[in-house]
Amino acid sequence: MTSFETTAELQRLIACTAKLAAGGLTPATSSNFSIRADAQSCLITVSGRDKGRLVPEDFIRVDNQGMALDSGRTASAETLLHTQIYRERPEAGAVLHTHSLAQTLLSMRHAQDGLIEIKGYELLKAFNGIKTHDTAIRIPIVANSQDMTALCAAIAPAFAGQAFWGYLIAGHGLYTWGRDVEEAHRHLDAFEFLLTAEMTKLGFRA
Amino acid sequence: MTSFETTAELQRLIACTAKLAAGGLTPATSSNFSIRADAQSCLITVSGRDKGRLVPEDFIRVDNQGMALDSGRTASAETLLHTQIYRERPEAGAVLHTHSLAQTLLSMRHAQDGLIEIKGYELLKAFNGIKTHDTAIRIPIVANSQDMTALCAAIAPAFAGQAFWGYLIAGHGLYTWGRDVEEAHRHLDAFEFLLTAEMTKLGFRA
Amino acid sequence: MTSFETTAELQRLIACTAKLAAGGLTPATSSNFSIRADAQSCLITVSGRDKGRLVPEDFIRVDNQGMALDSGRTASAETLLHTQIYRERPEAGAVLHTHSLAQTLLSMRHAQDGLIEIKGYELLKAFNGIKTHDTAIRIPIVANSQDMTALCAAIAPAFAGQAFWGYLIAGHGLYTWGRDVEEAHRHLDAFEFLLTAEMTKLGFRA
Amino acid sequence: MTSFETTAELQRLIACTAKLAAGGLTPATSSNFSIRADAQSCLITVSGRDKGRLVPEDFIRVDNQGMALDSGRTASAETLLHTQIYRERPEAGAVLHTHSLAQTLLSMRHAQDGLIEIKGYELLKAFNGIKTHDTAIRIPIVANSQDMTALCAAIAPAFAGQAFWGYLIAGHGLYTWGRDVEEAHRHLDAFEFLLTAEMTKLGFRA
Repeated sequence: MTSFETTAELQRLIACTAKLAAGGLTPATSSNFSIRADAQSCLITVSGRDKGRLVPEDFIRVDNQGMALDSGRTASAETLLHTQIYRERPEAGAVLHTHSLAQTLLSMRHAQDGLIEIKGYELLKAFNGIKTHDTAIRIPIVANSQDMTALCAAIAPAFAGQAFWGYLIAGHGLYTWGRDVEEAHRHLDAFEFLLTAEMTKLGFRA
Repeated sequence: MTSFETTAELQRLIACTAKLAAGGLTPATSSNFSIRADAQSCLITVSGRDKGRLVPEDFIRVDNQGMALDSGRTASAETLLHTQIYRERPEAGAVLHTHSLAQTLLSMRHAQDGLIEIKGYELLKAFNGIKTHDTAIRIPIVANSQDMTALCAAIAPAFAGQAFWGYLIAGHGLYTWGRDVEEAHRHLDAFEFLLTAEMTKLGFRA
Repeated sequence: MTSFETTAELQRLIACTAKLAAGGLTPATSSNFSIRADAQSCLITVSGRDKGRLVPEDFIRVDNQGMALDSGRTASAETLLHTQIYRERPEAGAVLHTHSLAQTLLSMRHAQDGLIEIKGYELLKAFNGIKTHDTAIRIPIVANSQDMTALCAAIAPAFAGQAFWGYLIAGHGLYTWGRDVEEAHRHLDAFEFLLTAEMTKLGFRA
Repeated sequence: MTSFETTAELQRLIACTAKLAAGGLTPATSSNFSIRADAQSCLITVSGRDKGRLVPEDFIRVDNQGMALDSGRTASAETLLHTQIYRERPEAGAVLHTHSLAQTLLSMRHAQDGLIEIKGYELLKAFNGIKTHDTAIRIPIVANSQDMTALCAAIAPAFAGQAFWGYLIAGHGLYTWGRDVEEAHRHLDAFEFLLTAEMTKLGFRA
């Protein structure tokens, strides 16, 4: 992307994160967000900001190995999970990571299975490449860890398999991506709806 | 309607859809909306837009068989379900199709019954023609399909029967209509409230 | 109240109803609202308006027997329930009637008991005259009817008993009041919180 | 803090309370809020105001024993619970007290246990001093009382023990604090998320 396009896409990301914050997906200044800037780098949120009112200065440029290219500021601890996605998925243009109730609770409940299968919903068509409700997706789940290298290793096998647009970290939240902010946001909306539907059907009791 | 009246009604539809989007009824750019323009045509949303910020240019004119009358743009895949309603119900002036959680889950749960019966609520009086809570409505449910002609055929028998103001597609959502946007919106509000009430009573477990 | 005071109080009522509408308490243009204008009359909403955007012209003046004092407009069908409160409770300055999910479902569930008892919550202190959480309130419930005279007769005995600030109509909604709009709104907030809490504890299944 | 810093922090508190009110955490004009002004005093909300639209004049200055330093106005009845925190926790710069549904219901449910233990959630890291999800917090619960001296005595032992950032009063609500408004708000967000998650897992039935 040109610098001008990156600026416009960053504005779209900021508008998107404000919406997610208003919807309760980023409790307690959690969550982090990024867009690909060019083949070698991305722009990612710094830690600890209120995600409801980000400004361009709340983003830092890091290379595809997660090293900060801007001096004097610290990227989110989870930067390595973003850069893994940009390396593994050349088509990914934006990565959204959030902490909703449904993401947290269902990922804990199904942690031992290593995945949640969701099927039969019309809204599955919101995912890039899906053309019918008469299908199923399997959302990978990895155990939570404070060691980002370990988390990257845990999710690595999924990237070698069939197409997918997001995964869960148990008791923690969702990573999802898309070709641009608009598609990543649509994927996040779809995951959130489907997980909430499954949670509602359970009349949840862990 | 005159062209001037159509423009005003389209503005009311856009205001209505923004409200529905804010209320979570149009997740992941799903849902679609239309108004009758004249005896032969209606205006309907094009696919894939964020329903929270539609503009008049996001609507396309189609005839009552669903053929686009504007060149170069594609109407929503579900256009045929809208035009069926305009053909079968001469009084219909607006059609709203949404994808809420309650619409999705209850329609899946009762799909085999082919209907949901709802009775005894004061809010039933929100439907045109109902004057007392001491009555029941039966909301038809059809199985989901990606074949719009098949969906039209499945719901066709209902149009031959007694008055009704909406139907469900299982795991997908609700179609409702009214004489104008205001009435269609009131019907949608009522369906959503009643389905949510029924879902709450179930302490939902599918 | 002077005409000036009435105008100011009506503005507070309009602001209050916009808040209630935004909170989902007035689905499908349901609900109605009034303030006492003087010893002989009150101002009450006309039927069928969107309660999220009322203007002063959406109110009509009626006397304490419910007869319209403004020509050419029709007061809400439920006017008699408002004027009964103004006659029976000289201290009442505002009456709010809403249709929330919790009001609808809990009133249906406990209709045969004729009341719901709620006890032990700190929020009970929001009601005028209650100074401790260590108490209980009994909210009367009457069966729904489209005959307003019958509804008035059904709730009449409650007005002869101990102090209370609201009652439920089964499957329909809540009537509450206060010395002014501010207090009536605080009472409504408290009823809504307490009924929602009770509904949540039930993991509702009717 | 200088007078200038106090004014700026008070503005942050007012913005925070507006957000909490919009989120339903302060039903029926309940809840109260304060910031430390200097080593000897704090600024705390007066009683009965709508917490969605506080102004600086809605705060009163009290000393660390809870005595009003401004003439002619009455501090919240629960002032003593705030000043206890400022005395016991020198690092506390802001105290938030709210009345959410989850706070109310879970504190009633676990009142006899005297605490709720919450463990394994990523969001635990929102609390000052916690660096991993692989831990647990114990939130103290005291029985409700209208005697503030008794409430202070009931919670006093907790202040002698290990670090904690909040406690519950059964059927009433949460007290939480932080080094400043921003941190107190982050702690409140985290408590609310975690309590809501636990309540959801229960499919609540008291």
